[in-house]
Formats: sequence, C-alpha cells, structure tokens
Amino acid sequence: MIALKQQSYIGGNWVTPGGKPFSSQNPRTGETVATYTSSGVQEVEQALNAANAAYQQYRLLDKNAIAKFLNTIADEIEALGDQLLETADKETGLGIPRLTGERARTCGQIRAFAQLVAEGQWLQASIDTAIPDRQPLPKPDIRRMLRPIGPVVVFGASNFPFAFGTVGGDTASALAAGNPVVVKGHSFHPATSELFCHAVDKAIQSCGMPKGIFSLLLGNGHDMGAALVKHPFTQAVGFTGSLKGGRTFMDLAAARENPIPVYTEMGSINPVFILEDALKTKAESIAAGLSASVCLGTGQFCTSPGIAVTLKNPGFEKMLKEKFDEKPRGVLLHSRIGSAFSEAISEVVKHPNVGWLNFTPMGDNILMPPNVVFKTSATAFLADPKLSGEIFGPAILLVVCDDMNQMLAVAKNLSGNLTATIHATDADSADAAQLLSLLDQKVGRIVYNGFPTGVEVCPSQQHGGPYPATSNAFSTSVGTDAITRFVRFVAFQGTPNNLLPDALKNENPYGIYRKVNGKLTRDAV
Amino acid sequence: MIALKQQSYIGGNWVTPGGKPFSSQNPRTGETVATYTSSGVQEVEQALNAANAAYQQYRLLDKNAIAKFLNTIADEIEALGDQLLETADKETGLGIPRLTGERARTCGQIRAFAQLVAEGQWLQASIDTAIPDRQPLPKPDIRRMLRPIGPVVVFGASNFPFAFGTVGGDTASALAAGNPVVVKGHSFHPATSELFCHAVDKAIQSCGMPKGIFSLLLGNGHDMGAALVKHPFTQAVGFTGSLKGGRTFMDLAAARENPIPVYTEMGSINPVFILEDALKTKAESIAAGLSASVCLGTGQFCTSPGIAVTLKNPGFEKMLKEKFDEKPRGVLLHSRIGSAFSEAISEVVKHPNVGWLNFTPMGDNILMPPNVVFKTSATAFLADPKLSGEIFGPAILLVVCDDMNQMLAVAKNLSGNLTATIHATDADSADAAQLLSLLDQKVGRIVYNGFPTGVEVCPSQQHGGPYPATSNAFSTSVGTDAITRFVRFVAFQGTPNNLLPDALKNENPYGIYRKVNGKLTRDAV
Repeated sequence: MIALKQQSYIGGNWVTPGGKPFSSQNPRTGETVATYTSSGVQEVEQALNAANAAYQQYRLLDKNAIAKFLNTIADEIEALGDQLLETADKETGLGIPRLTGERARTCGQIRAFAQLVAEGQWLQASIDTAIPDRQPLPKPDIRRMLRPIGPVVVFGASNFPFAFGTVGGDTASALAAGNPVVVKGHSFHPATSELFCHAVDKAIQSCGMPKGIFSLLLGNGHDMGAALVKHPFTQAVGFTGSLKGGRTFMDLAAARENPIPVYTEMGSINPVFILEDALKTKAESIAAGLSASVCLGTGQFCTSPGIAVTLKNPGFEKMLKEKFDEKPRGVLLHSRIGSAFSEAISEVVKHPNVGWLNFTPMGDNILMPPNVVFKTSATAFLADPKLSGEIFGPAILLVVCDDMNQMLAVAKNLSGNLTATIHATDADSADAAQLLSLLDQKVGRIVYNGFPTGVEVCPSQQHGGPYPATSNAFSTSVGTDAITRFVRFVAFQGTPNNLLPDALKNENPYGIYRKVNGKLTRDAV
Repeated sequence: MIALKQQSYIGGNWVTPGGKPFSSQNPRTGETVATYTSSGVQEVEQALNAANAAYQQYRLLDKNAIAKFLNTIADEIEALGDQLLETADKETGLGIPRLTGERARTCGQIRAFAQLVAEGQWLQASIDTAIPDRQPLPKPDIRRMLRPIGPVVVFGASNFPFAFGTVGGDTASALAAGNPVVVKGHSFHPATSELFCHAVDKAIQSCGMPKGIFSLLLGNGHDMGAALVKHPFTQAVGFTGSLKGGRTFMDLAAARENPIPVYTEMGSINPVFILEDALKTKAESIAAGLSASVCLGTGQFCTSPGIAVTLKNPGFEKMLKEKFDEKPRGVLLHSRIGSAFSEAISEVVKHPNVGWLNFTPMGDNILMPPNVVFKTSATAFLADPKLSGEIFGPAILLVVCDDMNQMLAVAKNLSGNLTATIHATDADSADAAQLLSLLDQKVGRIVYNGFPTGVEVCPSQQHGGPYPATSNAFSTSVGTDAITRFVRFVAFQGTPNNLLPDALKNENPYGIYRKVNGKLTRDAV
C-alpha cells in the first residue's frame, strides 16, 4: 500500500502547492475520497523548467533505454494492484470490472509503445546518398527521420481515468517519442492520478531517467490549464474532454507568439443510421444493441451514440423503449456531470417537437439519472442546431425521417464526429452506398452493422474525426500511430556519420528497415 | 500562342470580376505586362461552390484517372513552350535559365505525384481482419486508409512562380489526393498564372474531369484572401509568403467556427555557423560559397542565408566583402519587394552596433539594390531581437562571437528556421556535435559543409521547420510526402466488400502493399 501524499509532483519532488484545496468524491456515496491543494502558475513554471532541462538529456537517450523505462512504468502500474482499482472506483464509480479491463488496456498500450520504440521502425528513417559527379549539380547526401519536439502538456480525461489519464495514450506516446511530459491530472480523480505518478516516479528512479521528464500537477482552477498551454517551453498539447475546454485550449495555442499543435478530443454524437430493410428485419437486435451501447458506462464514452436516425417505425420505438427500461440506472462520474446531464435533459424536454419516449421522473440523485430516449422528426432536427449538441450521459435522440432523402439530408448536415454507424441489409445496399459516401466526409470511423462503443485497439483503428470531434482529423489517439503527434521530421545534409543520430548512421546500428534511395532495406549504406 | 484573356477562371468558365484593376510590371523596365480586374468575395463564393460540388465526383474517381489528369497537366504546361518562360520572365525578372529549370522541376513534381497516385501505396491501406469467436469479445473487421478532405485553397508564392505557384507543389498534391483546388494567383504575375490555368483547363477538358475541381482567382485586394480562408467549404490552406501574411491566415483559420489546417511557409533567416578550424582553413571557399548562396536569385530564396555566425577573423570579413563585390546586382521581383528591401537596409544601418562592410550607395533603382554584408557582435545580436528578422533580398548579417559559448548562445536563441548550416573540419568535431544538438531543435534541415539554397528534391528532403519558418513543422512542402497535407485517415468497420474503397477491397484491385493484421503484403484478404 502506498500512503497517499496528496501532493503534486514536479521534476522528482512531491510538493504542496499554495492554491485552494479541492477534494474528490465518491459519486455513489458523496463521501470525500481525498483532498489536495491546487497547483497554479508557479507550479506550471517549475514543471516546465524541469521538463525543458530534462529534455536536453532525454531526447538523446538510446531507444532501448526509453523502451525499458516504458515497460518499467507498466510493471509499476500493475504493482499498484488493487489499491489502484479501489481508489479509482471510489473516485469515479466506474466499477472494478471495467477498471480492471481499462488497466490491462492502459498497460498494454504503454508496452506497445515500448515495443515500437525498441524496434525503431517508427522513426521513418530515410537516406538518399550523394552523387558527387551528378550534372549539372552534385547531389548531396540527405537523411531524414522523426525527432522529438520537446515538453508536451497532457490533460487527463475524466471518463477514462487510466487509458486517457495520467499515463494514458498521450503521455505514453510523448514519452516514447523522447519528450518530457507535464500532466494536469483530472480534478475528479486526483488520488488515482497520484497513484499513477508513484508508478512513474519509481520507474524514473530505477531506470535512472532525468527527473524532470515527468510532472503531475493537480488542481481545479482554470489558471493552471491556460498557463500550461501558454508556457513558452510547451511544444504540444494533448487534451480529452469537453468541446468548450478543448476549444479554449485550441484558441490559446493558436494565439501564442509561436502557435503549437493541440490534439483535442472533444464532443461527438456518433449518429446511428438504420436503413429501411434493416429496420424491418432486425429491429429487435438493433434496439438491444443500441440500448446497450448508449447505456454502457452510464453513457460516458466518447463513442456513445447520441442520435439514431430511422424511417417511421412505431414497432422499433416500442422495442427501444422496452430495452431501455430493462437497463438499470448507472452512476455518473461526478456531480458536475450529473447536473450538466440533468440540465441538458430538461432543456431538450422543453423543445416543442421533442418527446420523451420512456418518460420517468429524474429522481433526487442527479448522479443516478434515468436512461433517456427522446424522439423528434428529421424536419425539426434539421431546423434546430441545438438538437445536434452532445449530451454527455445515457440519452439518445431518435430522429425520424419521412424518406431516404431526408435521411441523407441529416447525414449531409452533420458536423464532424468520431464515428457514424450504418445498419443495413443487402436490400439496403444502394441506400447504404449513398449514405457511406456522405459519412466518409464527416467521421473518423464508419461502423457497419455494429455499434461504435468498444474501440478495438489495432493498427487499422482510427480514433479521431473532423472538428468538433477533434482538433486534428489526420491524427488518431488510439493505437501506436499516435506517436506521430509529438514529433517532427528533421533532415541532415552532408553530416558526418559520427554526428548523425543512430537511426541514420551508415552501419544501421538499429537494424531497422530504412528507405535508402527510395527502396526499403535493412542493409548498411 | 495563347491569347491572354486577362480574366479569372471559375469552375470551367473565364470570368471578368468587378473588382479594381491591377497590373503586373516588368521589374527590369517598369513596363506594364498585363492588366486584370480583381476577384473578390463574390468570386470566392462561386469558386468554392463549384469546388464543393465537383468534390462529390472527384473524390470517388479511380486513381488512374487522377494520375492521367496530372500527367496531362504537366504535358500541357510544357506545351505552353516559350510563351510561359517569356511571360514569367517579363513579370518576375527571374531570367530564362532559372525559369527553364523551375519549369522542369514543376512538371517533374506534378508527374511524381501522378506516379504516386497511380501506384496507390501512399494511401497507407491497412486491414485488420475479424475474429468472430475471440473471447471475451469478437474482434471486428477494421480497415483504414487516407481519404481526401475537400476543397483546398492555395496561395501562390511570388518568388517561385512555377514550383510554388498556380500549379506548384500544394496544388499538385491536393489534386493528387482527390481534392478540388482554388488558387489565388500571386498579383505580381497574373499573366503567368493565367497561362498555367489554360494548361489545367485543357487537361480538365481532355480528361473529362468535373469542371469545379480547379479555379484561379486573380486580384490584389486583402478581402479575397480572407474570404477564401474563412469560407465554410474550405477544408485546408496552403500558403507560401511573408510571415505577416501567413500569420494572418493562420489566425483566420484558427478563429473559424470549425478551425482548419493551414500550411504556411513564411520567414527564415537560415543561419550559417562557421566553426573555428573551418574559418582558419577554408575561409576563402566558404566566403565564395556564402556569397553565391546569398546572392542567388537576388536573395529571394526561402532558404537564402540571412546570418553568418563566426568567431573573430578579419581575414574572412575581407574575403567575404571581396566576394560580394564581385557579384553583379540582380533584379528584385517587384517594386514592393524593392521598397521593403531598401527600408529594411536603412533600418539596420541605423543600428548603433551594426556596420555595413561593403558599403555602397543604394542607387536610384530600388529594384536593383547592392548585395549587402552587415556586421555586428553576438552580444548586440543577442540583445536586440530586431536583428533576427528576415530581410528578403541579397543581404547577410555577419554575427561575430567572442568564443564558442557565445556561438552556442546564438544557436540556442534562434527561432524556428527552415535550415541551419554548419561549416566545420574534423578538428571542430566536438563543437559541431554541441551545435548540431541545439540546431536539431530549431530547424527542418541541417546542412553540413554546404549551403542551404538549392533544395534537392528527394524522398529524404524536409522543407519545413518550427514556427515562424512554417505553421506545421511535421510537414514538408517539397517531395511527394506533401500529399499528407490534404488528407485524413478514415476507418471502415465491418463494411461489405462492395462498399469499400478499392484500396481496401479483399481482392486488392490496386495490387498495393497493405498492412494486413500488422504485416505488409500484396496478397488478397
């Protein structure tokens, strides 16, 4: 058992910031779990100075040293044992089974980055050799590879305290690429964040890493976030959270004297389109799958479906209502999410063209709300952009279309999303093709006859999408390709072999495939 | 010979915009070459509507159709013959030999994109096949590839009227990826831009392409540029020009309701560091090479060296002065560049710690200025950020350091640059290693014992760099890798084979290498 320090961690030292105290609560009971004082501008300054100083050593480390460090972090996270699961469960109410799975995924992705780094292939090393006697001009020797960019700021997410948290995907990929990281732990689960920080601290010590490569700042003020994004040493930002928060950081980063890249994952309504024949022939299984997907994790997944678009079919509506009624109420992460959900529901209810299919009183505990099915017409939906907003929690809006053309109009009218789903049979094939061609322009992942929750971690995964789903539709936050967020290419022209990074040296000490004069080879040059 | 229409071109139609007239001038004689009326907000609206409509067809075209289209454009540019060279020479004063070379490079890069598209490998197709009986959950079939993003706006550069002009790298890569393009031709050379547009128009007609995929708007007002960046159909922007212009467009794009990526290439001072032993033993050849590099194209290259950093060595200064004195005056592109250069020179001259080594009166013709060598101390340079600004034209500032530590301080103090250069001998190796490690954090390309002008077009080239050199240090504007500017990844989960894009179909109709369950193969699935 680790005795919680209830402190922030800056460059190897545990510190007690002078800011206001804040606490995490158990959403099931309302009890206080742990109390911290908030880090602020001063701690941001210290953490980024430490990060920038450590960067000068860390960026030059051998790839195997970094791989070993990442594997050690994963080992130390597992060594936290039940204390991590129990603390996180207390602070989030997500439940031990879900958190056990998320821990496995989190350690799995850290080790995947370790393997990627140990292999060295991801560096995209490329060599064009010189032709000194080329006419009319000699051809120089040019070699290019990916290089780290410097201190990265990561904002932990509330809804995935492990996989997108203190040592989630962004932290792992930034460290893997050779960058120091300053994490702002989410204020809903500071004790969970602290435990991860102990794991990193042990790994830094046992691997002899420069201490400034990792800091964890805890706090609940807005000043700290802005200061982290604006600090001159910050070279990139990773953020998973609300549209409002993400856009604020995008704007701050764009307004810097030197703008920096910001990778935000924000809102997504993950529309589910159900075509005519699928609605006729598979209504029950679709209703079952949709209700399970919407209510999973109390609707707090970034890929949770927010609208379902169908033709008229009262039978389906009845089935959907029944399936939702069978689901027990879940618990939301935090009272702030509870009140936001309640407010959003009461706002939508007021809409003259929206009905609540499975109406039931909200109840006294905003943290355990009902699972909600709203219904509206496509005409009303298209007329009021407010109905396209994300409701974070277990709610879906059924959008009923007069015909296929109206369904296509709904697709065409969508903003950017992480996912879109199509339910179709062979008989729907022509409609599906039209719909697919529109959705292809709107989302990062199209799911066919499935549901968007449950993001498979594999090389072909794309977890991203056009704004407002994310700030950068090219990038994915799931999978090892995420390492390209925190790097840039540097070319070396005519540089002596001994001064080149190892990946570009003649003798190919990494033994990796390199593009040599345009062809992939592991041969020495 | 093509009779110039002196019009803009929107979705297949030549139009006469209602804006103010503007003319191009021959910088050698001051004579008017051609007069156009300015496109404005109305033409922007028409061009982007046409682009967005055409996109729905263009994005679905077979790869070979796009490759053929690109090759046809290159053929049609060559078919413009001497008229293109002579018109461009009149409008820019760059000279027939240089323009002949730039035409070859421009057609070469268009054909390189055609080849890339025909091969299909660039799509990064990746397939993970399903495991329906996997425990605890089935694994879905997920396939991912790069997809076009929609209408791209390209701002042509003044200093490379072909390679970074109307059908320069950004236009070619955007079209290659399946995007329509709206070009704002540079107002210094509208007739040159129009000739390129005729070539594209012929290719669109002979290849039966949707007409809206290319528009050329000519004008010299600021409204049109802003309207292009702000238009809701615009999905990305490519810009090569000044820091002021580039930053304006970055800010406009970031302030959109849905921010879009902007690839700007802006200012760069391309520092040249000359280490102690190199300065002793190779002073004359370095002075010769440096003066040639600074004066090439009258100093109007984005990679033109703006500062040279050395230890004290009066002999080198004398040589440099002599080499510069041997260079004839060149001609600048335009009176606006001429006055900006004159103003910048008179500003620097006023600085109490700057001397003009090869002083000579500016003369009456601001378009034919002297080649200028300024000198200052590293102490003065480090104290005044104004001395780090880019002077667009044939001028270099010699920065003299007291010792190696001061030289490292100058490197550490640099902003982002396209390139940095080190001149060193074996005896300088330890200093060179220290310097290299700092410059690696500041630039896109490090040149060793060479000069930064003359950007080799090869797979390992990186033409980019941290802000303010560009807006996106990950990206390169030279080389076929530039195609990744105007695309994003889309994943298809569980999608029937007949609805997938060709690159992802089971039978691999493109015959490309795909990552199938993590391994590269050309086999069918």
